[in-house]
Amino acid sequence: MCRRLTALILSTALWGAPALAADPLAAWNEGPAKKSIVEFVEKVTANGSRDFVPEPERIAVFDNDGTLWAEQPMYFQFAFALDRVKVLAPQHPEWKDKEPFASLLKGDLKGALAGGEKAIGEIVIATHAGMTTEEFEKIVKDWIATAKHPETKRPYTEMIYQPMHELLAYVRAHGFRTYIVSGGGIEFMRPWTEKVYGVPPEQVIGSTIKTSFEQRDGKFVLFRLPEVDFIDDKTGKPISINKFIGRRPIAAFGNSDGDLEMLQWTTAGEGPRFGLIVHHTDAEREWAYDRQSSIGHLDKALDQAAQRGWTVVSMKTDWKRIFPFGSR
Amino acid sequence: MCRRLTALILSTALWGAPALAADPLAAWNEGPAKKSIVEFVEKVTANGSRDFVPEPERIAVFDNDGTLWAEQPMYFQFAFALDRVKVLAPQHPEWKDKEPFASLLKGDLKGALAGGEKAIGEIVIATHAGMTTEEFEKIVKDWIATAKHPETKRPYTEMIYQPMHELLAYVRAHGFRTYIVSGGGIEFMRPWTEKVYGVPPEQVIGSTIKTSFEQRDGKFVLFRLPEVDFIDDKTGKPISINKFIGRRPIAAFGNSDGDLEMLQWTTAGEGPRFGLIVHHTDAEREWAYDRQSSIGHLDKALDQAAQRGWTVVSMKTDWKRIFPFGSR
Repeated sequence: MCRRLTALILSTALWGAPALAADPLAAWNEGPAKKSIVEFVEKVTANGSRDFVPEPERIAVFDNDGTLWAEQPMYFQFAFALDRVKVLAPQHPEWKDKEPFASLLKGDLKGALAGGEKAIGEIVIATHAGMTTEEFEKIVKDWIATAKHPETKRPYTEMIYQPMHELLAYVRAHGFRTYIVSGGGIEFMRPWTEKVYGVPPEQVIGSTIKTSFEQRDGKFVLFRLPEVDFIDDKTGKPISINKFIGRRPIAAFGNSDGDLEMLQWTTAGEGPRFGLIVHHTDAEREWAYDRQSSIGHLDKALDQAAQRGWTVVSMKTDWKRIFPFGSR
Repeated sequence: MCRRLTALILSTALWGAPALAADPLAAWNEGPAKKSIVEFVEKVTANGSRDFVPEPERIAVFDNDGTLWAEQPMYFQFAFALDRVKVLAPQHPEWKDKEPFASLLKGDLKGALAGGEKAIGEIVIATHAGMTTEEFEKIVKDWIATAKHPETKRPYTEMIYQPMHELLAYVRAHGFRTYIVSGGGIEFMRPWTEKVYGVPPEQVIGSTIKTSFEQRDGKFVLFRLPEVDFIDDKTGKPISINKFIGRRPIAAFGNSDGDLEMLQWTTAGEGPRFGLIVHHTDAEREWAYDRQSSIGHLDKALDQAAQRGWTVVSMKTDWKRIFPFGSR
């Protein structure tokens, strides 16, 4: 009995030691960015710390496009919309002579986008409205399970950043609740965020279109209407955080000027606060872009990071690896 | 040592036994309503049950006014608005000659309400907008801590239904997450729902007014604008449940036609579902009203309850006591 107990204790110690020592942020290089994260998490969670924050207030908000997964060469949700235009084209013979659809169906993306925001809006509405919420969920699930990134040929759900994936798990292990606060569609994200990021539907906030409650074929449904309800970007982010969560987060993570107000709102609160910007600096392993880019435009927020003490992560130097696949 | 241990075990057993046997729904009379609740909770939570529902899907939604707390002789939030009109009147000399404020300030509620929904809207906007979200939170906290119900002279937070209070705790003890889904203002409820009901801010859904993100006196704030954003009533309830939670609840609790669509949406889902209506039938201990009442109007939902198998709770016969104070 006693020998077995000793053996058990020894084996637990042997197995336990490496597990305890394993770095939960292994994809991060040692440096000031990683250090700032660990220091913040430790000071708000250590018992007796003067910066201690009770668990219910440990709210961390994360942008999605460019922060948790890639956003080049185009926002992935827009790739979804373009795929849907192709699928839906046979039901819309009028699209052959109607922009932006006519150009799209000829494979001329540049021509389609010549119509600017109006054209993008028409593409989004044509592909995201006119079905029940349950039908849309199925469409998204089918697409995300099969679609491939045009350059890496990987499923989009593998185009996530390994260091951020680790960071989500790391803060959750310290009693944080992690929310996604994205300009992307709330119902485009919810079908897969739990599986991919460990973030359940009720912790996903995003842009919405209006819905109506109806009875169709004897069933109660929510029907997606061709009208924008709310754009969850820029000032929309603190507004929706307040509306959905009703608490001010203590940590915010973004990568573009669309996240500026969320970072301002989060880090201006009293007590310990943390802001972080993912800077896309690695043209070799990912993409390099910031002030001049229309996708993931990062200009004002980069200037404010220094003034406001936000951590700026250089993907090139701070991240040991970028994606979960491959070796770097 | 051994005697002390035995004593400890005995005393634990003596103290523990009544605690274990205590009825978590003690304020409910034995009868079909109580039985239906217990049977539903047991069948969705028992391991191996063919109706088993995993914890993340155990979402229960509760209306507030008339379901969790009383709503007579007027919605409590409207009492708050009337109190605010009095407080704000010195800053609004023009109200002396402007309806509905002129009548209100003379104590003529009926005259003020002669203006119908437009008048109510003006009173709500005048008292709920024009300050930051943090300022409004403080106003609500101060009011709820001091205001008294006009008839019982009790704080409004004591005008909650003891049986529903037990029900909230009971389903939570069985792994449910409890949400409030109310026509009341989301920021009118959040400052006190956790303390009073055990429902944290992020599980409170309600009507909203628009806010703007601004920098005032060097501070980032959300400012409450004089414009309605969303009315969380009738068809608005399933719409907001889908928007905020992203899951269809498995149980819904209401008391009026404002809850009809929430009950329909919840109980029309696949698998085990539960719908319940609190019927105000007790003129002696509370108030008796339904089809003819403008407050808590209950007509269509009462008719549909029988067809759809929803539990109808008669406050008079199903509830042993109504409020936490007093003896009945």
